[in-house]
Order: sequence, then C-alpha cells, then structure tokens
Amino acid sequence: MSQFKPTVRSRGRRAPKRVNYDRETIYGVLDSSFMCHVGYVLDDQPFVTPTSYWREGDTLFWHGSAASRMIKRMAEGLPACLTVSHFDGLVLARSGFHHSFNYRSVMAFGRARAINDKAAKEAALEIFVERVMPGRTAEIRPANAKELKATTVVAMEIEEASAKIRSGPPIDDAPDYDLEVWAGTVPVKLVAEAPVPDPDLKAGIELPDYIAQWTGMEKN
Amino acid sequence: MSQFKPTVRSRGRRAPKRVNYDRETIYGVLDSSFMCHVGYVLDDQPFVTPTSYWREGDTLFWHGSAASRMIKRMAEGLPACLTVSHFDGLVLARSGFHHSFNYRSVMAFGRARAINDKAAKEAALEIFVERVMPGRTAEIRPANAKELKATTVVAMEIEEASAKIRSGPPIDDAPDYDLEVWAGTVPVKLVAEAPVPDPDLKAGIELPDYIAQWTGMEKN
Repeated sequence: MSQFKPTVRSRGRRAPKRVNYDRETIYGVLDSSFMCHVGYVLDDQPFVTPTSYWREGDTLFWHGSAASRMIKRMAEGLPACLTVSHFDGLVLARSGFHHSFNYRSVMAFGRARAINDKAAKEAALEIFVERVMPGRTAEIRPANAKELKATTVVAMEIEEASAKIRSGPPIDDAPDYDLEVWAGTVPVKLVAEAPVPDPDLKAGIELPDYIAQWTGMEKN
Repeated sequence: MSQFKPTVRSRGRRAPKRVNYDRETIYGVLDSSFMCHVGYVLDDQPFVTPTSYWREGDTLFWHGSAASRMIKRMAEGLPACLTVSHFDGLVLARSGFHHSFNYRSVMAFGRARAINDKAAKEAALEIFVERVMPGRTAEIRPANAKELKATTVVAMEIEEASAKIRSGPPIDDAPDYDLEVWAGTVPVKLVAEAPVPDPDLKAGIELPDYIAQWTGMEKN
C-alpha cells in the first residue's frame, strides 16, 4: 500500500499501534472533515487557526482573505502543520487511567504557497465548493474578478503525514475486569440537520435535491 | 463584562464583528468541546496536536504520557496556542464568494507548565473525568502511584484569548438576492449515541443513570 515515509517530524512515538502512514487511511481522514487546524509560527509564537480546507492528491488547500495576516505570511512559504481530527466518542474504562477517546486524526507537514494564477485559483475554489456540497457550483453566481483578487488560495504539498486512530472498547488492566463498574464506549457523531432557508429567500424557490441529499447524513 | 485584553497576538483582524474577548463567551466555547488543538514549536517546526483538555477559571489543562515528546517539551514552558472549534454547519449563499461555515472558535495563548505536585495532579485528573462524564469518578478505580507517575498534567494560564463566532443566514451582495438560487444554512450537530457495552463487561452490570443521561444529547 502507498505510504508516506515516517520521519522524525511525523513519526508517532506514543502508542505506535494507533499510528499509520497509509495514503488510503490518511486520505480517508482528510476527506471526511470540513474544518482543519493549521499551525504556523510568527515571531516564535505558535498560532493554530481553524479553517476550511480541501485535498487533491497529496496537496492540501485552504483559502482566506488576501488581506489576512495568516494567509499573507503562509503564502510566503512558511512551514505549516495541518491537523484534522474527528472526535468519535468516549471510552469509559474501569480505571481513570484507561479512560480515553475514540478519534481519527491526521497531522500533515509541508510548506504553504499561494496559487497566483487566476484560472488555477478559480478552478481550485470551484473544486472546494463541490467538495463541500456536490452540485452547488452549477447553481451559484461564479466569482468575479474583484472577489478572486480578494481571495488567496494556499496550497501545501504534503511532505510527511501520519494518521492516528483509536477505535473500539476500553482496554483495562487484567484485574480490573472483575470490578463492578460499567465499561464501554459512547459513540459521538456529527450529523446534518434539516436545512434552514434564508429569511430573505425569494418566494417560490424549492430546496434542491442535492442539498436535501446532503442533510440527514452522518458527516464524519 | 469581564474581558481578555486584545493584543497583537490575539486580536482578530479580519471580520472584526465576529470576534470578541468576553470571558463568558470564551468560557462557553471552551467548556462545550472535548478535543482541542494545541500548537507549539520544536526546532522552528510548528506542530498541532489534537488532545483532550479541560478548564478551571483562566487555566487550561491537558495531559499525556510523561514520556511523550510533546508533553515533555510543553512542560518546560513552551509558548503554546490552544484552539477549540465547533463546526456548526454550512452557509449556502447565492455566490461562491459568500459561502461560509457557521462555527464557534477560541484561540488561547500562554505558556505551558507541568503540575508536579502529586495531590494537585490527582485532583486535576479527577476534575477532568468529572468534566467529561459527571458521576464517573465515584465508580472507577482511582489512579495508583505508578499511573500518576506515568502521566504528566500540563497547565496553561490564559494570557490572551479571543473568540470568533459566525452564526445565522448567508449575507449576500444586494443584487444577488434576486437570483433564482436556494440560500440558507444546513446546521450540523455533534450528538451522542446509545452506549456500547464492552464485550468483556461482567454479567449483571446495568448502564448507570449518569451515562444514560449523557447520551442522546447534543454535545456541542
């Protein structure tokens, strides 16, 4: 299976059984979330900014106002760490020590760069909209020149990445299985609810099928 | 209302209407999530680690293996940025440009330190369990000396913090309200599902009320 190469930077040192470098696993975690957390350093100070993102192959993308401090500095080629995580529930063990969460996470490392070509930027933003809500692009007003200029799209080739996943029941110390304590997991899911029309929605516009299909489904 | 002081580090420069520094708002976002993303710098490289956390007053806590690279270096007093974010749904506007997410997030800055006092560490870990699942501490086996030694609890006084929140319908350009495009939001929620007993659960142990109460509720 295709793998990212473990390095000093990406290697998971704790709980190695939970860590892997398979592209398929890493893509799976990256492609089933909407918000990531981007880490970067400005003047020795770490910042972690939550933002939307999308992926194509081994490249991660995010975007923002061309005037944003984070986006401007990112586009200069700053080292970045983009982390995605899903909280999948509580793991209730018989001891406090073995309590845990079930989760799926990916840490990806690379250097950010701006996409300056207008056509490439436009294409990237359309891919983003389709990634979040398939079918939406065909319906909406496309970006105009002013909007494209006001938006910076940042791309980061993944140099290294690792996934860390915990699932399943608690693992207790052998003697603790005799304790009179309920143990197990409480799964937690992200779910989409019924769409809420804009109060200013023009009369007579029905909810499109592609939005109806999106809702009511699990989102992680 | 009590506020964190805006600084160069914490000031939200984009979309200032979405940013605030009220303790009440910041506490609200911090106290309704389970996983945060901690950013720190090792050898000029940013890292963003998803982890569980809890809060007391203006202090944030997280924990990990005493042998973990992140935890060891954190405890030395590294500058850190702890970010919490809730993804609340899609904002579907009439133009691609005004598409957005609804979200609530907090960025908190400070310096981490280890809690070395055994009693303080023990107390902190009990507070953590109670924060995640009220009622659990009374039932489980408490930490023993070996487990306490293997666990580092990290505390960070919040020096600066800001909340950024977007809610409500899309805001479109005036002429776009005439387009024949459905617009609105699709709310997304984190929900807890029915508990799954450990396959090795001792016969005759019923699900406690405090766990039953926790499930079936919204979690963000």
